[in-house]
Amino acid sequence: MRALLLLFPLLCCFSGLSAQDKSGPPNFVVIFTDDLGYGDLSSYGHPTIRTPRLDEMGREGQRWTNFYVAANVCTPSRAALLTGRYPVRSGMSSDRHRVLFPNSTGGLPASEITLAEQLKSAGYATAAIGKWHLGHLPQYLPTAHGFDTYFGIPYSNDMDLSSPLPYHEFWRQSHDSIRVENFNVPLLRDTLVVEQPADQRTITRRYTQEAMDFIKSHAGGPFFVYLAHNLPHVPLFASDDFLGSSERGLYGDVVEEIDDGVGRILDLLRAEGLAENTIVVFTSDNGPWRSYGLDGGSPGPFRAGKGTTWEGGHRVPAVFWGPGRIAPGTVRSMGSTLDLFTTFSALAGVALPDDRIIDGLDLSPTLLQGHDSPRQEMIFYRGQTPYAMRLGQYKAHFITEGAYGQFGEREVHEPPLLYHLGYDPGETTDIAPQHPEVIQQIAERLDQHRATITPVKNQLAERKN
Amino acid sequence: MRALLLLFPLLCCFSGLSAQDKSGPPNFVVIFTDDLGYGDLSSYGHPTIRTPRLDEMGREGQRWTNFYVAANVCTPSRAALLTGRYPVRSGMSSDRHRVLFPNSTGGLPASEITLAEQLKSAGYATAAIGKWHLGHLPQYLPTAHGFDTYFGIPYSNDMDLSSPLPYHEFWRQSHDSIRVENFNVPLLRDTLVVEQPADQRTITRRYTQEAMDFIKSHAGGPFFVYLAHNLPHVPLFASDDFLGSSERGLYGDVVEEIDDGVGRILDLLRAEGLAENTIVVFTSDNGPWRSYGLDGGSPGPFRAGKGTTWEGGHRVPAVFWGPGRIAPGTVRSMGSTLDLFTTFSALAGVALPDDRIIDGLDLSPTLLQGHDSPRQEMIFYRGQTPYAMRLGQYKAHFITEGAYGQFGEREVHEPPLLYHLGYDPGETTDIAPQHPEVIQQIAERLDQHRATITPVKNQLAERKN
Repeated sequence: MRALLLLFPLLCCFSGLSAQDKSGPPNFVVIFTDDLGYGDLSSYGHPTIRTPRLDEMGREGQRWTNFYVAANVCTPSRAALLTGRYPVRSGMSSDRHRVLFPNSTGGLPASEITLAEQLKSAGYATAAIGKWHLGHLPQYLPTAHGFDTYFGIPYSNDMDLSSPLPYHEFWRQSHDSIRVENFNVPLLRDTLVVEQPADQRTITRRYTQEAMDFIKSHAGGPFFVYLAHNLPHVPLFASDDFLGSSERGLYGDVVEEIDDGVGRILDLLRAEGLAENTIVVFTSDNGPWRSYGLDGGSPGPFRAGKGTTWEGGHRVPAVFWGPGRIAPGTVRSMGSTLDLFTTFSALAGVALPDDRIIDGLDLSPTLLQGHDSPRQEMIFYRGQTPYAMRLGQYKAHFITEGAYGQFGEREVHEPPLLYHLGYDPGETTDIAPQHPEVIQQIAERLDQHRATITPVKNQLAERKN
Repeated sequence: MRALLLLFPLLCCFSGLSAQDKSGPPNFVVIFTDDLGYGDLSSYGHPTIRTPRLDEMGREGQRWTNFYVAANVCTPSRAALLTGRYPVRSGMSSDRHRVLFPNSTGGLPASEITLAEQLKSAGYATAAIGKWHLGHLPQYLPTAHGFDTYFGIPYSNDMDLSSPLPYHEFWRQSHDSIRVENFNVPLLRDTLVVEQPADQRTITRRYTQEAMDFIKSHAGGPFFVYLAHNLPHVPLFASDDFLGSSERGLYGDVVEEIDDGVGRILDLLRAEGLAENTIVVFTSDNGPWRSYGLDGGSPGPFRAGKGTTWEGGHRVPAVFWGPGRIAPGTVRSMGSTLDLFTTFSALAGVALPDDRIIDGLDLSPTLLQGHDSPRQEMIFYRGQTPYAMRLGQYKAHFITEGAYGQFGEREVHEPPLLYHLGYDPGETTDIAPQHPEVIQQIAERLDQHRATITPVKNQLAERKN
């Protein structure tokens, strides 16, 4: 690391001249994957998946090892990122209906303020590309939430299945013959369907290209690109250039195609002279979907996966990049997708809304100066219910529950289970008996949090039929 | 990586002038840890253990992700590294007695040729520092096997226990009050005991210092330093400078002290102008000892641990460093500690013995030019019995067996279990039914290997009393 720091000024020389005033607000690019696990990048320990561009991005920028999403499934996790609020506040999480489905009629309420709206108020051009999953009726789409443009599949890529079977069962029976035509998912430009079924074999490449086109046509900045890949969520598809390329099979092909796309975006930013005035963050929406076996990803050293409040459900890889701005290093203090709203608002000079609770914190002292993160706690919701809470290195599980037929039944713990995540990242050894005072402290803090939650309309409960 | 490669010539400028002729045979430093798991370094995915110096070493050199030891416990693994031969050939592995104990009377036979003897024949100065575990009677010690000097504990640091209890039980009862005095292990200089019990709190620091002193006094080269740390094998001890330093608790303190020592050795090589003429390799003797809970390490994404023929027993981190020689990158083809004998002999210009089978391969085209490794297969022994074999990406388990009360009973598999380690590094999904031809091929290859094994005296069976 020391050698890299020494050479940092030299590295900067390789980038071209900036088209923008570097003292102005930076551009932001958020690259958000679907169901990618903590352990699925080479720089996060995967032995066979090749992610040279993300590894390089982490070496040049910051690789975070204690980074969390605010929900362990798609819809609420995305709501949290874009609003900076636990999704229970916006009605975008539900104990019963965990995500939005094609027959859902709800979505992110207009009253919510998105990161796009924040940045738009400071003159940013804004683009949403990829999976939305915050409501697919026109009034809920990205163009109704502060994004100038949208290009993508508005929900999960396994929906609109052309089979009466539940997807798990369809997958089990048809694994080796799954085709694009099995999923009648629409591809939208703004609010119009431009392709159905979307050709998922080329979707990763097309999303990347769309992001690059937007960047090129807004090189005068400032801009905000929210690029939310539909993959590596099942069903897995890769373009011909990547099919069969990875030792890790199709799952690896998909991740390696995403990695390549990240690299091409960084290359473009350099070529356009924008690298020093753009912050790029790469992360995932929740842990790996392990009930799909080898079509699902790896939680690395963490327990369980998607759908659960174990670390495997909430801990995700997170890489921040911004040559000359982001202080290079490995960050072991806590961060969350919740914090992007607050951090990017601060960096753009936009005041936070003062009429609502924002759960995000400003990570800019960590990003820019390498200070410890201000985040000391994280709450692990399942639907509308807080199941667990982390305070410092301690995490108390008040309720545990598996998901998708794995990792056990619902269980209420009295006293709660307690783990020290520094010493025991795998959540193997309950130390509740030794630390009743810690449990007390966490329980009190969680009560304080609960008192800030006010009932709102459940957006996930509304469906046609 | 591309950026690093571009800058590589610049990096070289930072090192001083070499005291040695760079066209001559390189110096070798082997740093070998005890029971460190694949997942215990930051660059191999550990979220809380800080290993900045090893991470940097891997960025500047090669980080291997498919690197194996030839045995899953201490004694045979060390015999394999130093002889380049599966330990069944030297009598240093045994189905019943898995390692040497203080009352053992056997050891590495004089007829075996060690890497130290190979290099000595080319004029190298040779030092063994740390754990030996290949026989502690004078005729088996390092000084009888080609090393000019020895400084270390001749067997495991949990031996000579001052309690009638088996160590596991002692550990369970006394975990928080374990002291150096509980282990009456001797510290030897050459063949003489210089301290007993060895003060294990400072042993890592003293081993590192010993290696640095040897390097400094042999800067004219060539030299070979075999630095085999006794830790992070239980019982865990760290010096005051590191005690309490790691978020991962005492295990992390120990690993971070080893990391610091590695960094100090690399710094010294640079300061002495030796960096460009020295190859340093860091690896571990087997997987983590998981029955010790959080006092044991992490296998990362691999199954089981020390003592088993699952990947968690045999796959280890391996980092090669040598600025200007080692081609930087991540290496995903196979390598083994078996190969150090052959590779270092080749680099030193020493012919291999022609009167015996050497199982090691020459990795120098991989190390120096970044070519794929020539290693296509690996045999997984438990004692004298081959339990499993990897050929290309496929691994067949003919027998599986847990260890230390974990991971199941002995089971003979007909047909064998078959895993594709690229697709399924965690050995979760048996694909034997789909690939009978692969199993056939592996079985034939294993029969060929078996035919090369000739009976020798079992060195681990002999004990006093």
